[in-house]
Amino acid sequence: MTILLYDLVGSDMTRPFSPHCWKAAMALAHKGLDYRSVPTRFLDVSAVEGGASKTVPVIRDGDVVVADSFAIALYLEQAYPDRPSLFEGAGGEAHARFVERWSQLTIHPYIGAAALTALHGMQDAANAAYFRESREARFGKSLEEVSAARDAGLQSFRASLEPLRSMLSYQPWIGGDGPLFADYIVFGALQWARIATPYQLLDAADPIAAWFGRCLELHDGLAGHVAAAA
Amino acid sequence: MTILLYDLVGSDMTRPFSPHCWKAAMALAHKGLDYRSVPTRFLDVSAVEGGASKTVPVIRDGDVVVADSFAIALYLEQAYPDRPSLFEGAGGEAHARFVERWSQLTIHPYIGAAALTALHGMQDAANAAYFRESREARFGKSLEEVSAARDAGLQSFRASLEPLRSMLSYQPWIGGDGPLFADYIVFGALQWARIATPYQLLDAADPIAAWFGRCLELHDGLAGHVAAAA
Repeated sequence: MTILLYDLVGSDMTRPFSPHCWKAAMALAHKGLDYRSVPTRFLDVSAVEGGASKTVPVIRDGDVVVADSFAIALYLEQAYPDRPSLFEGAGGEAHARFVERWSQLTIHPYIGAAALTALHGMQDAANAAYFRESREARFGKSLEEVSAARDAGLQSFRASLEPLRSMLSYQPWIGGDGPLFADYIVFGALQWARIATPYQLLDAADPIAAWFGRCLELHDGLAGHVAAAA
Repeated sequence: MTILLYDLVGSDMTRPFSPHCWKAAMALAHKGLDYRSVPTRFLDVSAVEGGASKTVPVIRDGDVVVADSFAIALYLEQAYPDRPSLFEGAGGEAHARFVERWSQLTIHPYIGAAALTALHGMQDAANAAYFRESREARFGKSLEEVSAARDAGLQSFRASLEPLRSMLSYQPWIGGDGPLFADYIVFGALQWARIATPYQLLDAADPIAAWFGRCLELHDGLAGHVAAAA
């Protein structure tokens, strides 16, 4: 049966942008599972599956509803053990949590700020109003002020990615010879930026940019088919 | 046959201090292997096993000589597959490289500076002279100048550990329910500091301090039996 993925979009339903939803989409594709993306706007989230979660992604697989990208990956790994593994063992599963925390705390704050006005610009009127109000309350300043600081932080952001960059001198993927869910965790963050804003996060010669390019080609170009923001 | 571990020491042969040697020692203990530590000073390293490596740890296991802590862990995993696993699968092995790069690039620079004069003070005259000359050339300033900057960097260092701290709110070890080599990677760095200097790196209430305390108790207190610097 086709799995449903509730996937965050703005006014253009063909441009899902949430980093966490991209993690789930890549995990579903990695498992080779048939799924259908259900375009979901910020203001629709509370009604998804009768209020199953305050955030997306949410998936429905038959009678099972799962929220949270990491929980979804764990669920898929357990429910479809004969499909390609997302973790390659218990160690990979445990260590992926460290990668997830690193990505969330190192990459997300910068992108969340750098892409903030662009993300606002992707929403329809009602969702844009919600986005501005909720984010300005969170940051304690205007969206424009938050995004304006991105140039000053760019070099420091790029430097903060050095563990990933250095790892890529040892192996082509966080997962080793091939991608695993930990790759999708970091990929999701950078794909969020790619879809929202043309702002150049990475130097073109950065090995991380090459790895990101490889991610865009995975699973028949699932993530690359959504054009970068122009 | 007893495995030999060439283990870096200063003038006191009972206080091995190298972070990388601690990773290897914990990996050997995790595997339940019989090993003997061979106290090795900086100036002895080039003669270890006929010049097998420019750095320690080096192990000899029968006819096999292996250098580099990560390579040692990979070797032990492959040579002793029936012993407790250091990686719990291919995913854990791959992801451990990311943890290693994160630890090396996030934790080592700060500790290497903060403990620098203390590490110098642990050496005998000849090794102290070597240490001062080589490190002052590397840093481009005196050991004392380098270590003096530690107070100014302490809050930033503690903040840089947030991915590890946050992960510990999900699970008790980087390895999940129990420690794996990735735990020993980070542990080795903090043990290096513990043995060299009484400088308080972590707030006592930090969950990382509690995890570190659990590491000290592992394998019959292998690492805890070496007293902290006073």
